[in-house]
Amino acid sequence: MSAVRVGVIGAGAMGTSHIRTLASWVPGAVVSQVYDADVTRAKDVASEAGATVADSADALIDASEVDAVLIAAPDPLHAELALACLAAGKPTLCEKPLATTAADSRRVVDAEAAGGRRLLQVGFMRRYDPAFVALRRLVASGGVGDVRVAHCVHRNAQSHPSATSDGIVGNSMIHELDSVPWTLDSPLAAITVLSPRVPAGALRDPQLAILETATGVLVTVEVFVNAGYGYDIQCEVVGTAGTARLTPPYGLRARAAGVDGIAVSADFVSRFADAYRIELRAWVDSAVAGIATGPSAWDGHLANLAAAAGVQSLHSGRRVEIVEEPRPELYA
Amino acid sequence: MSAVRVGVIGAGAMGTSHIRTLASWVPGAVVSQVYDADVTRAKDVASEAGATVADSADALIDASEVDAVLIAAPDPLHAELALACLAAGKPTLCEKPLATTAADSRRVVDAEAAGGRRLLQVGFMRRYDPAFVALRRLVASGGVGDVRVAHCVHRNAQSHPSATSDGIVGNSMIHELDSVPWTLDSPLAAITVLSPRVPAGALRDPQLAILETATGVLVTVEVFVNAGYGYDIQCEVVGTAGTARLTPPYGLRARAAGVDGIAVSADFVSRFADAYRIELRAWVDSAVAGIATGPSAWDGHLANLAAAAGVQSLHSGRRVEIVEEPRPELYA
Amino acid sequence: MSAVRVGVIGAGAMGTSHIRTLASWVPGAVVSQVYDADVTRAKDVASEAGATVADSADALIDASEVDAVLIAAPDPLHAELALACLAAGKPTLCEKPLATTAADSRRVVDAEAAGGRRLLQVGFMRRYDPAFVALRRLVASGGVGDVRVAHCVHRNAQSHPSATSDGIVGNSMIHELDSVPWTLDSPLAAITVLSPRVPAGALRDPQLAILETATGVLVTVEVFVNAGYGYDIQCEVVGTAGTARLTPPYGLRARAAGVDGIAVSADFVSRFADAYRIELRAWVDSAVAGIATGPSAWDGHLANLAAAAGVQSLHSGRRVEIVEEPRPELYA
Amino acid sequence: MSAVRVGVIGAGAMGTSHIRTLASWVPGAVVSQVYDADVTRAKDVASEAGATVADSADALIDASEVDAVLIAAPDPLHAELALACLAAGKPTLCEKPLATTAADSRRVVDAEAAGGRRLLQVGFMRRYDPAFVALRRLVASGGVGDVRVAHCVHRNAQSHPSATSDGIVGNSMIHELDSVPWTLDSPLAAITVLSPRVPAGALRDPQLAILETATGVLVTVEVFVNAGYGYDIQCEVVGTAGTARLTPPYGLRARAAGVDGIAVSADFVSRFADAYRIELRAWVDSAVAGIATGPSAWDGHLANLAAAAGVQSLHSGRRVEIVEEPRPELYA
Repeated sequence: MSAVRVGVIGAGAMGTSHIRTLASWVPGAVVSQVYDADVTRAKDVASEAGATVADSADALIDASEVDAVLIAAPDPLHAELALACLAAGKPTLCEKPLATTAADSRRVVDAEAAGGRRLLQVGFMRRYDPAFVALRRLVASGGVGDVRVAHCVHRNAQSHPSATSDGIVGNSMIHELDSVPWTLDSPLAAITVLSPRVPAGALRDPQLAILETATGVLVTVEVFVNAGYGYDIQCEVVGTAGTARLTPPYGLRARAAGVDGIAVSADFVSRFADAYRIELRAWVDSAVAGIATGPSAWDGHLANLAAAAGVQSLHSGRRVEIVEEPRPELYA
Repeated sequence: MSAVRVGVIGAGAMGTSHIRTLASWVPGAVVSQVYDADVTRAKDVASEAGATVADSADALIDASEVDAVLIAAPDPLHAELALACLAAGKPTLCEKPLATTAADSRRVVDAEAAGGRRLLQVGFMRRYDPAFVALRRLVASGGVGDVRVAHCVHRNAQSHPSATSDGIVGNSMIHELDSVPWTLDSPLAAITVLSPRVPAGALRDPQLAILETATGVLVTVEVFVNAGYGYDIQCEVVGTAGTARLTPPYGLRARAAGVDGIAVSADFVSRFADAYRIELRAWVDSAVAGIATGPSAWDGHLANLAAAAGVQSLHSGRRVEIVEEPRPELYA
Repeated sequence: MSAVRVGVIGAGAMGTSHIRTLASWVPGAVVSQVYDADVTRAKDVASEAGATVADSADALIDASEVDAVLIAAPDPLHAELALACLAAGKPTLCEKPLATTAADSRRVVDAEAAGGRRLLQVGFMRRYDPAFVALRRLVASGGVGDVRVAHCVHRNAQSHPSATSDGIVGNSMIHELDSVPWTLDSPLAAITVLSPRVPAGALRDPQLAILETATGVLVTVEVFVNAGYGYDIQCEVVGTAGTARLTPPYGLRARAAGVDGIAVSADFVSRFADAYRIELRAWVDSAVAGIATGPSAWDGHLANLAAAAGVQSLHSGRRVEIVEEPRPELYA
Repeated sequence: MSAVRVGVIGAGAMGTSHIRTLASWVPGAVVSQVYDADVTRAKDVASEAGATVADSADALIDASEVDAVLIAAPDPLHAELALACLAAGKPTLCEKPLATTAADSRRVVDAEAAGGRRLLQVGFMRRYDPAFVALRRLVASGGVGDVRVAHCVHRNAQSHPSATSDGIVGNSMIHELDSVPWTLDSPLAAITVLSPRVPAGALRDPQLAILETATGVLVTVEVFVNAGYGYDIQCEVVGTAGTARLTPPYGLRARAAGVDGIAVSADFVSRFADAYRIELRAWVDSAVAGIATGPSAWDGHLANLAAAAGVQSLHSGRRVEIVEEPRPELYA
């Protein structure tokens, strides 16, 4: 088997992290081309990876030395790039969100469905996190009985200066909008997004969502992108036979100055390092076969539909039902 | 100082537990009379305590050898008994809820306010639990910054056969309807009570409430009276500078058969043994002075107002604002 | 039943703590007299307790208004005071250690045995700590299988300026020299006490003991009286079917500044508040009957024999067998 | 860079695990040859890896398509195979122990030193475990102050039928005989190995070692290869400014049937999966350069010297000083 030659679009933090993970931990893949609007950055990263710099995203997508594409460009570009990759017929890993609107993610879904072959994988890396996988497996096996309620927490130390109240739904909570239906194996039916009172003009942060699944499970989701103390992802699933919850991948416990304490993860890169590695491993394995098998464009679109409803609820303060679209046959 | 002579109305599980706690752990109090509709039960308990059996609740309340009254009778009797105690001018500890309707608790408040002296303490024992006290103190001191969100969990192993969906609000969640505003030092302004889908005809259990405080904090409350695995009370307060949460009073940690596990409390009696003891200590101390200083009739009424709104929300599925009544001067 | 009138010798930190615990939490006992070499201190404490001040320890022991004696005087006085209490025929709780030498504790044992009635209880309060009690019960029930090894940790934040290397054995480790054989239900047969290298002239702290029980179980004990970060008591019992260990009575867990932390106890008074209360309850209950039922003078003597061997080992660096004396019939 | 072609000697559990880790997670390496005395097993594993089967270990070591050798053969063969690899001048990862006697590991050291180039890495994978690495780093940075004591626990669910009392030292405890001096950055100076009483004829298990470092730190090590409940590795380092300890890489926490529990690792393969992966990554990186940089043959020999002393102590019951040999210049 010769290595899959990966072209990476976007050499920012996420793209660089993926490139390094591929180089260190994923046999069978070689980063062959890099593109970034910032040419200097592209050159630095490409040089580290032993790759060449592409003149444009389109050139990279079409390049004969690129077998598969990894999209880590800014969010607003995702949909168009994904469409181009589909047109080129190349297996593609697109960072979340698949698009910044549900209309755009629908276009991507339609294009892929028209092609009749799954080529896209969306970067919902939690599906590869060992703890999330164990949680889902336990729930599926009936380990907590019939699920009734779940509680999720998603906290970042600080938000980007560019963060917006709507963006907290579309960019942060979107992880739960995928991981909750995936963990519970039931699509989302409705969402209410509330926020506590904050100083006038401030970001509406934290936000508190109540999700309802098609099977009638209620899920609370707290997203707090300025929680200050660190990056903290929690999830407890509560059923008629018990509960199960994630435990963070702590490493050391120190007793000092009156406190018995454990270091919280600093950010998602360290918290989900294993997940990213396993995600890329799985993606490369499927790319070898010229297809995609992970979280699909349809999953990306469903999350976008839920996010759109969530933003609407954030503005109205009311419960919003999530539009139900028929699942294309490709994603059956 | 001669001992406070306590008359206890109700010799069921709660009444008996209080009598034993007084005898073992609370100097300065003597149980002098016991009344229970079940005479045999009353006799057994009175005999153990070295007390006499009263012919009726009224006789007990009026007895010259009763300085203070502890009401542990069935809930529907609380309000009338409390009124009788007020009429008799005796310091009284009334188990929660103060009344089964807000109209009744209002009557009690009015009667006490008319008397111009606080005589009633309501049995919200969490206010005496060392962990809850520490949580409230940390929050008040700014230890978590500005509070934005809180998450509460209240689980019992099994419910009484007599449990009703409305009763989950009025009898179980009522603890949070008092402990949340007390912990956060802000009254409740609105409540939404939802429940996940359960089999037709089944108890609506668990229930999920969203509380809003007057200061705009959002609080999730899960009450699950058939959680099966044990009795479990959790609370995390989330602020701009960090979070704080209760840790249960675990005693042993055992490693066996592939699991590193800690025994969960079996019931509220064991979980809150310290709280009950400290509550009774405080009550006896104030009863010596002929007054009441703990959770007041007004607190009991506020919880009832919130519970009434909660039941309404449970039925309608909508957010219900909690009626705001002016605080009588006595409770300023 | 009229209250047991307690005379307290020693109004320092421990004595004052006991007096307050009796007043707040132990019905059936009244502190009637206090003695302390520091008259001002004695007066302050006596006044708070509503007690009178005795002119001397002997006067207190002989006073007709003293039914039972609590010895919380400096350690070197324990043995003589205990002998005087025996001579007076009064139930006595003597703080640990029972004596500062095994010869002296033997004299106390002989005197009590000659009297033919147990009157002394030694202040090994761990035997009343709910977690230790649960651990012992689990072990006795076979919950960890056949015990093979145990690990104990005993850490204080700071030592008294008067602390000595030998005193760490006789005054701190003596708790383990009683709690280990009690928990495992097997007497100690040998002890080795080692210490890591410390700066020249410094206290030999921490110390590491290897205890061997008569049944062949090995127990490591770390005592570190300047551990800095707080007061921390740990014990894990390891058997052929699993392990069990104490969990500290934590109250709050806070997430802040990158750490998820729990406050460690500050000192033994807060860590063992429950144990002291339950110990005094048990002592008062037995004192009513004019006897002693808790940890006996013989237990206190056994701990002293082990401590003597421990000090010898600390000096020689070698394993020392613990002298075995026949158990007097009174303690059968 | 073309891939390092790895020849693997030994296709048992450990060898197979390494081969799969290389294939899945370590870019830059290809398993080119496999040898095992059991030809069927060798063929199966080689076939999975796309490798050829060697006729003998020597043939594999000398094969031109083998750039580097991984020795996962039975322990008694390690030393001879390592010598052959040195003779062939090929970078080699030899599973622990480097040899089954200190005399043999000395021969390997001498041979490598004579060659003047480090080629051997010993499979002490804990040095690559993120938690151990963090612990060592914290200690080195002074995070716990001056180290005085450490406590290690090493438990397996069940031992191999072939386990011997001496082998518990040489095969299990050998991990601590390397990880302790590595974590504390101080060589071992003395060892005492004790065991609790076990039924006559039974394996001397658990064993309790007291290690002394050259800097005077005391370390307790419990090794229990039939602990029953799972695989459990613990280490707490205690210093003058606090303590730090490993936390296991738990994934889920479940509440059920009265217990709040966490699954313990089943075995070393799952507990140290990350460590093995990172170890192989580091080894392949150094093998590219034709050298070895990880735990050295000298480290392997030092552990063997300590193990020899440990076995002697196990038999005599006394403290045994560990032979100090001058460190060859190659390992300076």
